[in-house]
Amino acid sequence: MPSIEQLTDDIRRFAEERDWDQFHNPKNLSMALAVEASEIMEIFQWLTEEQSKNLPEEKMAELKDELADVTIYLVRLADKLGIDLFSAAEAKIARNKEKYPADKVRGSAKKYNEYD
Amino acid sequence: MPSIEQLTDDIRRFAEERDWDQFHNPKNLSMALAVEASEIMEIFQWLTEEQSKNLPEEKMAELKDELADVTIYLVRLADKLGIDLFSAAEAKIARNKEKYPADKVRGSAKKYNEYD
Amino acid sequence: MPSIEQLTDDIRRFAEERDWDQFHNPKNLSMALAVEASEIMEIFQWLTEEQSKNLPEEKMAELKDELADVTIYLVRLADKLGIDLFSAAEAKIARNKEKYPADKVRGSAKKYNEYD
Amino acid sequence: MPSIEQLTDDIRRFAEERDWDQFHNPKNLSMALAVEASEIMEIFQWLTEEQSKNLPEEKMAELKDELADVTIYLVRLADKLGIDLFSAAEAKIARNKEKYPADKVRGSAKKYNEYD
Repeated sequence: MPSIEQLTDDIRRFAEERDWDQFHNPKNLSMALAVEASEIMEIFQWLTEEQSKNLPEEKMAELKDELADVTIYLVRLADKLGIDLFSAAEAKIARNKEKYPADKVRGSAKKYNEYD
Repeated sequence: MPSIEQLTDDIRRFAEERDWDQFHNPKNLSMALAVEASEIMEIFQWLTEEQSKNLPEEKMAELKDELADVTIYLVRLADKLGIDLFSAAEAKIARNKEKYPADKVRGSAKKYNEYD
Repeated sequence: MPSIEQLTDDIRRFAEERDWDQFHNPKNLSMALAVEASEIMEIFQWLTEEQSKNLPEEKMAELKDELADVTIYLVRLADKLGIDLFSAAEAKIARNKEKYPADKVRGSAKKYNEYD
Repeated sequence: MPSIEQLTDDIRRFAEERDWDQFHNPKNLSMALAVEASEIMEIFQWLTEEQSKNLPEEKMAELKDELADVTIYLVRLADKLGIDLFSAAEAKIARNKEKYPADKVRGSAKKYNEYD
């Protein structure tokens, strides 16, 4: 499996070779990221929650493609901003552990609904 | 820096300890991902492209937090679907290299505008 | 009930009086519209489809506020682009009637899933 | 120009004739609304703010179509929730007038950036 550093480099080179760096400012990249995230959602919008767990094969292929797009723009945006995604994610999880102590929120949909 | 496998495990354990797995079906996770991607965008919506490259420190902290949220839901969704994000992203880049040959599209905004 | 012309005028005057017209180009407005649509979705993301039909009163008030925001940015964007929203919507419905003949698609989730 | 009541009725009849009412719960409609809003944004994502003000004719046709989709889902969602969109929008504008007094915020991008 490629590392996040490798992926970051590959995306950077891809953009540079095409002189597309000029379009990749954080504002534009944030739009591209949201557009791609929305395309994932489009696959699920009329399915039930149960159906969303058991997608037919061709939907899975489409989904893989959309997840790839989100990953690419997310890694690109983080690169442009100098943010280390995985360290930021681990730090957030650590904060969430304090905010939502397991023994207090377990099984509580109500608590969950206030979680984000 | 944590690996994606480590992050995947940590998110999985976080949800299990809180019995929140029940909310994490692909449909719901796709919504959460889109909501968080949109919160990144909210930071940039009234800024110029230039301003988006030079954020004040407190906006950078906020942004880091939102990028963490997107990363968490993206990794969680991929885990639920059994998709390897980085391999999918590298495969997509390989396809894009064929679709947009560097010597043909270089510097062309027009071509770029057809890229997604 | 106010008409769409009245609402368009009121939003226009609101922006002019604050000299905010400078921020209201179609690109920025499309971001604001997507951000507000996402805030509606945030209310529903962890609810079941059934729960989404029976919201508690305070969620309804919040929702009303978010629907108002989407309406304002949609009407503002249409005003900037010179598009008549309701005529465009009626024209789209007419095309959809031909695309999805009632006697062929009735009750078919499969067909529906291809609808957008 | 059709009224919002007429449009609401036409969308309702369109869904009923196809037995698609079963898919139109608020959760699903909120996803559809966000997906369509994102499709508007997709048209603008790599354009400059200036370019977004001067779209070529075929982009304007595409945009009109996407604005129609957002309008349809917004009106449909409001109908399902029993919310009067225009009254809600006017009420929001009235609140915003108090929150952002014209003589205090005029021409201030800084203030604007805190507006939403």
